[in-house]
Amino acid sequence: MILETYYLDCLAQASYLIISEGEALVIDPQRDIKIYLEAAKKHNAKIKYVFETHHHADFVSGHLEFAKVHDATIFMGKEAKADFNFVGVADGSVLRFGKAKVEFRETPGHTLESVCAVLFDLEKDAKNPEAVFTGDTLFIGDVGRPDLLGATISKEELATMLYNSLQTKLLVLPNETKVYPGHGAGSMCGKALSNDKVSTIGREKDTNYALQAKSKEEFISLVATNQPIAPKYFPLDVQINRKGAQPLQNVIGNLRPFSTQEVVLLQNRGAKILDVRSHKDFSQNAIPSSINVGLDGSFATWAGCVFGENDKVIIVAQEGKEAEVATRLSRIGLDIAVGYLAGGIESWEGEMEPKPRLAPKDLESILENPNFQFVDIRGVGEFQTERIENFKNFPLNNLSDSVANLSKDKEIILMCRSSYRSSVARTFLENLGFKKVTDVEGGILACQEDGLKIVTEECSMSKV
Amino acid sequence: MILETYYLDCLAQASYLIISEGEALVIDPQRDIKIYLEAAKKHNAKIKYVFETHHHADFVSGHLEFAKVHDATIFMGKEAKADFNFVGVADGSVLRFGKAKVEFRETPGHTLESVCAVLFDLEKDAKNPEAVFTGDTLFIGDVGRPDLLGATISKEELATMLYNSLQTKLLVLPNETKVYPGHGAGSMCGKALSNDKVSTIGREKDTNYALQAKSKEEFISLVATNQPIAPKYFPLDVQINRKGAQPLQNVIGNLRPFSTQEVVLLQNRGAKILDVRSHKDFSQNAIPSSINVGLDGSFATWAGCVFGENDKVIIVAQEGKEAEVATRLSRIGLDIAVGYLAGGIESWEGEMEPKPRLAPKDLESILENPNFQFVDIRGVGEFQTERIENFKNFPLNNLSDSVANLSKDKEIILMCRSSYRSSVARTFLENLGFKKVTDVEGGILACQEDGLKIVTEECSMSKV
Repeated sequence: MILETYYLDCLAQASYLIISEGEALVIDPQRDIKIYLEAAKKHNAKIKYVFETHHHADFVSGHLEFAKVHDATIFMGKEAKADFNFVGVADGSVLRFGKAKVEFRETPGHTLESVCAVLFDLEKDAKNPEAVFTGDTLFIGDVGRPDLLGATISKEELATMLYNSLQTKLLVLPNETKVYPGHGAGSMCGKALSNDKVSTIGREKDTNYALQAKSKEEFISLVATNQPIAPKYFPLDVQINRKGAQPLQNVIGNLRPFSTQEVVLLQNRGAKILDVRSHKDFSQNAIPSSINVGLDGSFATWAGCVFGENDKVIIVAQEGKEAEVATRLSRIGLDIAVGYLAGGIESWEGEMEPKPRLAPKDLESILENPNFQFVDIRGVGEFQTERIENFKNFPLNNLSDSVANLSKDKEIILMCRSSYRSSVARTFLENLGFKKVTDVEGGILACQEDGLKIVTEECSMSKV
Repeated sequence: MILETYYLDCLAQASYLIISEGEALVIDPQRDIKIYLEAAKKHNAKIKYVFETHHHADFVSGHLEFAKVHDATIFMGKEAKADFNFVGVADGSVLRFGKAKVEFRETPGHTLESVCAVLFDLEKDAKNPEAVFTGDTLFIGDVGRPDLLGATISKEELATMLYNSLQTKLLVLPNETKVYPGHGAGSMCGKALSNDKVSTIGREKDTNYALQAKSKEEFISLVATNQPIAPKYFPLDVQINRKGAQPLQNVIGNLRPFSTQEVVLLQNRGAKILDVRSHKDFSQNAIPSSINVGLDGSFATWAGCVFGENDKVIIVAQEGKEAEVATRLSRIGLDIAVGYLAGGIESWEGEMEPKPRLAPKDLESILENPNFQFVDIRGVGEFQTERIENFKNFPLNNLSDSVANLSKDKEIILMCRSSYRSSVARTFLENLGFKKVTDVEGGILACQEDGLKIVTEECSMSKV
């Protein structure tokens, strides 16, 4: 039996491939499924089964492409409400292929249909499990957030289910059972996720903050509060995953190169320009009204906060990177890239403008000036932990919902951690018609370095 | 959604094909799976799923050929102990394809791994089930027999499980739910099975003898007694089904034509000759030591009582029927046909002998003669219901276990219903070295017609 972990840094998302005797199971695949197909081929195996631990909110899964194009069978919890065909597993359902046996356990809490998969390597030990794939039920250092279904069921009810699922389905596994979760640090699916890629049940029992709760009530109050704001695109992704996404090739294969003239024409007709260069390069010189989301960061998450499913996007990227950009957009369900500026920014023949930024040393003198709006677009937890006085917190996660609180007349000064996100927010706001927006160069890190006064506050449970 | 019933008279075995939107599920397929493949092809569908209600004892299923050769996924109860790969379903597990939804219910009783499948036609009614496939848990007019696992678990324990399964899993379905069982009249899997092919939950509640029991205790005593003797081949078939049978073509494709000389040579080396002509034709003239099991009856069941898995069999059949004979043997796991007499009985160049039978009118005069052994080889229930005085009952079902009770010195007079089975028993015994064996021509039916004295006894629950 072979077990391979695939970790997508951009979305802090883990997926898994289990191969035995020519057959393979993929768990929570990312949307671009070529990596799994190639790995399976390398091992002379066919991916016959896809297991979705639940309907993901934070990324679009490739499950339907496996089913439609590669004839795989999808497994999900029996409570899943999906448009596609699947095997709905119940507590105790089993899938065996080769020398691998997967036993499913229903673990409602993060969602109602959540299921974990206990893996046995029958060659090694038919009695004791090798590992458990915990999806978004149990992370390393954290547990699934129970607050995303608020519209249909309260977070307290879900937290109660999560508590029961953890206690009766996962923590009863032997301590040495390896834990392979659905996400790592940086994910919006929890608030204290570790950078580690694998743990054990025993280690989580000992160290996971949520599992230290002395009572069900304490657990509920711990996990139902201080969760990061869910990015704007989460409901869209649930919807897409329920339906099943179209094959990625349908998106990538249709990307067209555009000349400057065509880009201008399309922009006039409502298309948006997405410049994926680093925020530093972008600030030097950029196409007016273009939006900057650097590829060198959690690109998909932040793109998902500023673009919507109905946008049409023209990519400005280093030559050869266009398909990667479109793929990374599609990974969160934004099949919105229509083409790219042929030749990249160097070929642009139209107007350009620099995006001057505010140096931290120049910030101090205007902090008391009522003609400025000081906006920190980091997460609530980050903001609470350390911030500059007079900044208000409007997280980028749902900035599109907060714009009504901002005035178009007063200049906006944006702050984030390193000025990656503030470049996203700045260009997003400019695109919405805010004419006077500047961001603090280097963000709060640079402010600290330059000795600006930082308000600090302990808030251990809110790392995002 | 299309639902097709396949009923194999020879084994009184029902199988089902459900097709929706290009995908198909086959339930309890017989071993020769061509009929399903052709039906699916006709409807432009691919058989992607095979559901085995349990490990069958009375026939070999084609599930593994579907999986190995046609890439289908096998579904069974999670308690199944199998060597092949399968999806082990638990209570509430669901399989959806096209507009068909199948919900599985674990129904231990006949076996521990028994599962029934509730079918919804989502186009017609997503709430109320269209039908339930009850395997060997619920028949029309009967319920599954709980006495076949005697070695590992008592029939009373299994009958208790069966009672609970029926009450909590099946009889709770709406009365109008159609019932599609695994077997009909003639099967050894129960004792009161109807000839009907479909019923409803409501009708079974009203008329099924076992469901009229007033208490669990009454139910247990009703179903745990008076079951037919399990044919000798049952344990073999469970074993084969757990392992999965080899593709049928491997057997049929290797059948060789033999000349008389080759047949004699092989017979001398231990091969057995199986003559499948009608018992009437056979009795006129037959190859010495050949065994007669007529194709025009429950061929497989009775062949399974007189042949074993280690036999090598040469078929004597009408030209062109050889593959059918081999197929019907293989349907119960006897992959024992090595070839056939080329040209059939007409081409036989060796010795032949008639098989004189005893006319009923000649029976009466010898009934008190102690030099004869009078053996009725019908089922216990048949024998109890009506018989001729002085006959002892050694059912053909397990005659090979009873031969020690028979003397080779005294002539044996065999009786069955119509003299189909007695021809089987006679030639089987001759093959074992019994030199003096005769059967009553026309069986007990002819005796009745000729006015012989019949001992009758009411035993309503024992029809087999």
